[in-house]
Parts: sequence; C-alpha cells; structure tokens
Amino acid sequence: MIDRLIAKIKETKAPIVVGLDPTLQLIPQWIQRAAFEEYGETLEGAAEAVWQFNRGIVDAVCDLIPAVKPQIAMYEQFGVPGLAAFQRTVDYCREKGLVVIGDIKRGDIGSTSEAYAAGHLGKVQVGSRLCSAFDEDFATVNPYLGSDGVKPFVKVCQEQDKGIFVLVKTSNPSSGELQDRLVDGRPVYELVGEQVDAWGRECMGREGYSRVGAVVGATYPEQGRILRSVMPKAFILVPGYGAQGGRGADLVHFFNRDGLGAIINSSRGIIAAYRQEKYAAYGEERYGEAARAAVLDMREDIAGALAGR
Amino acid sequence: MIDRLIAKIKETKAPIVVGLDPTLQLIPQWIQRAAFEEYGETLEGAAEAVWQFNRGIVDAVCDLIPAVKPQIAMYEQFGVPGLAAFQRTVDYCREKGLVVIGDIKRGDIGSTSEAYAAGHLGKVQVGSRLCSAFDEDFATVNPYLGSDGVKPFVKVCQEQDKGIFVLVKTSNPSSGELQDRLVDGRPVYELVGEQVDAWGRECMGREGYSRVGAVVGATYPEQGRILRSVMPKAFILVPGYGAQGGRGADLVHFFNRDGLGAIINSSRGIIAAYRQEKYAAYGEERYGEAARAAVLDMREDIAGALAGR
Repeated sequence: MIDRLIAKIKETKAPIVVGLDPTLQLIPQWIQRAAFEEYGETLEGAAEAVWQFNRGIVDAVCDLIPAVKPQIAMYEQFGVPGLAAFQRTVDYCREKGLVVIGDIKRGDIGSTSEAYAAGHLGKVQVGSRLCSAFDEDFATVNPYLGSDGVKPFVKVCQEQDKGIFVLVKTSNPSSGELQDRLVDGRPVYELVGEQVDAWGRECMGREGYSRVGAVVGATYPEQGRILRSVMPKAFILVPGYGAQGGRGADLVHFFNRDGLGAIINSSRGIIAAYRQEKYAAYGEERYGEAARAAVLDMREDIAGALAGR
Repeated sequence: MIDRLIAKIKETKAPIVVGLDPTLQLIPQWIQRAAFEEYGETLEGAAEAVWQFNRGIVDAVCDLIPAVKPQIAMYEQFGVPGLAAFQRTVDYCREKGLVVIGDIKRGDIGSTSEAYAAGHLGKVQVGSRLCSAFDEDFATVNPYLGSDGVKPFVKVCQEQDKGIFVLVKTSNPSSGELQDRLVDGRPVYELVGEQVDAWGRECMGREGYSRVGAVVGATYPEQGRILRSVMPKAFILVPGYGAQGGRGADLVHFFNRDGLGAIINSSRGIIAAYRQEKYAAYGEERYGEAARAAVLDMREDIAGALAGR
C-alpha cells in the first residue's frame, strides 16, 4: 500500500491528502436541509448530510489527489449512523481509486490493539469465515502504550500490505507538554521517531519506504527537519497545513531529496474552501468546485516550495 | 457521576468494574451457533453473539457491582454492526442502573477531541436539536497530545456531570517504554499524574473526588502507591487484575485511607470464568452464574486485602 501511495503521488504530482472531516457547520445549508427533510434533525439526518457532502468533495477532487483522510471522530460523534457514513465514505473513496487513511488514533494494550488492527486494516474471524469491517488502507496510531500497542498494527500491515502513521509530534499547540519533554537530553518525539524507524525496518515496501510512517505537524517545521533524518525510511503524514497555520515553505524539510517521504493534509482549507474569501465566488452550491480550486492552489504552493529549496 | 459511582460502590461494597470485552473465542458455542443461524457468519452474526453474551453477564452480576467497562475495540472490530452492539450494551447497562465506563482511549487535537467528547459523553447539535450518541457515563482518554486533547472532555464532564479516566500508567508489559522515561529525574507517568490532578481540581464532585480520574495498571503496584499521593482527589481505574496477573494484595496502595479512590477492573477473569478450572462445574450453559461466583470471589479478595492493611 505504501508503494501504491507513492505511485499515486507520482501520477498526480500532488503529495496531498484531503481531510474529510466535515462538521455540520461546514456543510452547505441546502445539503443539511435535504438530509433533515428525509431523516429529521436526528443522528441519521446528520450522517446523511455528512455523506452527501463528502460525495460532492470526492467527485470534485478525486482525479487530482492520491489520498483522503477521514477523521473518524467527526463521524463517531453521530453514533452508529455516523459510523455507517464513515464506512460508506471509505468504500466510496476506495471505489474511486483513492488511498484511504483512517485518522483513528487508536492504541491500546496488545490484545486490544489486535482488535483495532483487525477492524480497521485487517480481517476478523467470524465462525469459519474471514470478514472485513472498516477496511481502510492506512490508519493513524497512538504510541503512548509502547510497542505492544503498536506491533499488532505492524503485523497486519505486513500481512495485508496496509500501512500506519504513528503519532510522533502532533500539530496542536499543547503537543509539547509531553512530546517535547527531554529524556536524557532528547525530546520524547525523537525517541518515538526512533521507534517508528525501528518498527518500519521490519516492514519495508519495494520503493524504499516502510509501511510504518509518522505524523508530524506542519506547525513544527524545525522538528520536522530533525525527524526527517531520524526516520529516513518513514513517510511523514503532515497535518496542520492551511487552517492550522502551516504554509508551503514550512514543509520542505519534511520531504527527502527524492521529493518523496511526505504527504501534506489539508482539511477545512479544502473542504470548506467555499467559505474563504478567495473562493467565495463559487458559492455554497458549487462547494466542490471551490475545493478543486483550493487543491490546485495547494499543489502549486507545495511544488513551488519544493522547486525553490 | 463520580458521586453516583461512589454511592454505588458503597451500596455494593464492591470497588469492582466488570470489563465487557468479549472476543468470539470467549463466547460459548451455543450462543455463537444461535447468532450465526439467524444472521450467518457475518459481522451482524458476530455482533448478535456479543450482545446476547453480554446480556447474560449483565443479568447475572448487575446487583453485585457498581459499574461495567465495555472495551469499544472488541465491538469496533465487527464494524458498524459491532458498534450497534456496543450502543445496545451501553443502553442496557444504564437501564439496569450500572455506571458505564466506555473504554475508548480517545484523544486528538482540540476540535477533534470535542467531537469525541460530544459523541461519547455529551450531546451533539443537529439542526435545532441536541442529540445524544453513545452516551456513556465515563470514558478513558489518551494524554499523548497534551491539554488541548483532554480539556474538551473535562468541559463536557463539568457541563454534563460525566467523568473521564486519563491513561497515566497502563497495565501492559511495554508501558514503560514511554511512560517510565525520566524527565528532570521523574517518570513521565508522574508528570501526567500531576496534570490529572490539576485538571481534576477544576472539576470536583461533592464527595471529595474529582470527575477526572486516571488509569493505572494493577500490574504496577509500586507506581500505584506513588500516583495515589500525586493525585489524591482522582479516582483510579485499575485494569490488569486477574488474567493480566494483578492480585488483591497488589491493590491496597491504589486506595485512599477512606477505602475509596480506586475501582478495580476484571474482564476475562469474570466474563470467561466458566473456562477456568475453578468455575468449570458451571459449564458453558451457566456462564453467567460462573461470572457471578467470580465476582463474589473478587469482592472477597479485595475486601480481605483492604482489611489486612
């Protein structure tokens, strides 16, 4: 799957992932109205609005990008109907040929991580049959519980050719409270980065990158530079571009000299582009076209930054 | 809700939570057979088996215990039908008067943690209405992202009188890889314990305990002793008793002198008691009665240890 992600990045010339993280606030009124007319102002109605909105975004941008990243919390907040919309979104994106990164940030003790790994990336035994549940291509994983919480995911990556991105240095303002603390003179994120490197070496794809990647926020470019060298074989999933404040010029150090090794996520900056002044002319009705224009601008911003380094 | 948990502990004289973490391997054949006959060897069939099994456990032990802790991964592995069984289990346990601790270990950047907090503990706005999704009483939370990942949960605890348990020192063998590393001479778990104490002071119940508790594994009694004094107002949720190796005598330091402040989880040791030699006479058919006997033994083990200190 890491090789497929790389092939798609080369094909689209866009190391970009679109975050499918819709809140109802970001969804045009006409979509919400139609969904509520059919299902009422219920969890089912909310889930329908999310799904219809996502479909419009995916249809508008799927030829431009290699991957999408649905954030499961935005679906889980609407309970079981929300998670059915998550499943439908994952399935639809895969049908469209997109690589799907489930932003689930799961992690638990070994036997429990096994269940998460089976449900999101692998298969689960039911009687004499093997069934797939959510079946994303990649998932994000939380490292607080140490190796036993991560290795069940690594095992499934190896067996099913899937991938993970382990949280190393997250994009949020308080990420440093724990992640920047010094252990023997070195920050926690570096130690976790070394673990990512070690886990990944057991799990290499054909193109020189491992199936075990890392999450490092665009909002911390200096840490990105350091982590790039700590984990040379890991793909870095970089959230925080756009709405959270990261810019193209901040991103160059996340890439290797081969122009690969990073994929930059933008969520609100793309899916709610129609609400930005720059793309306001599209209006609510044409939110998909606004998203497409925003993807093209983001691709240019990143290409320019990489060409200029 | 922390006050309700305390009242239920006093009423049952059992600081015990039963972990509803069924894998299919633990579910008696006759339950699986009936479920597969109705739904086939599908995710729906697996979810039905899990739900029927849970109902038998809950019916057998609900008068003896204050709380249950469904581990969401065990449901999530069966996709949307599995999560519907999780919802059904949560609802059923609340109907039976049990406090429900959702073992979800979620945690993300602020805006995303808000969605998890709304979906699991709070309410979510849909059009003009406020809807509840999973609606547990407590949830477990991962602290790797720092305060912004935890505070949205604290806010919901305050507004809706719910509670959380933040992962501090987990029960698994590799928990020390990150949690025991020394920062300025003190282990990471102590620093997180101090944060739990600080978050909790904004969020006190009437009985002297806060709505912000902590997870500390029974398998690390010495760390439990230290953390007890670092977080005097926090309830400690203690997994790892029984199947993971913790014993009653290891647990005394997790409690305060008032006999409160800790609640001990056992999962497989209770729900799969019928598979242990000690309770084998009950057989598969009477798995609920075996669970009941195991709860009574666990209550005695803990009471004996507390009396003897």
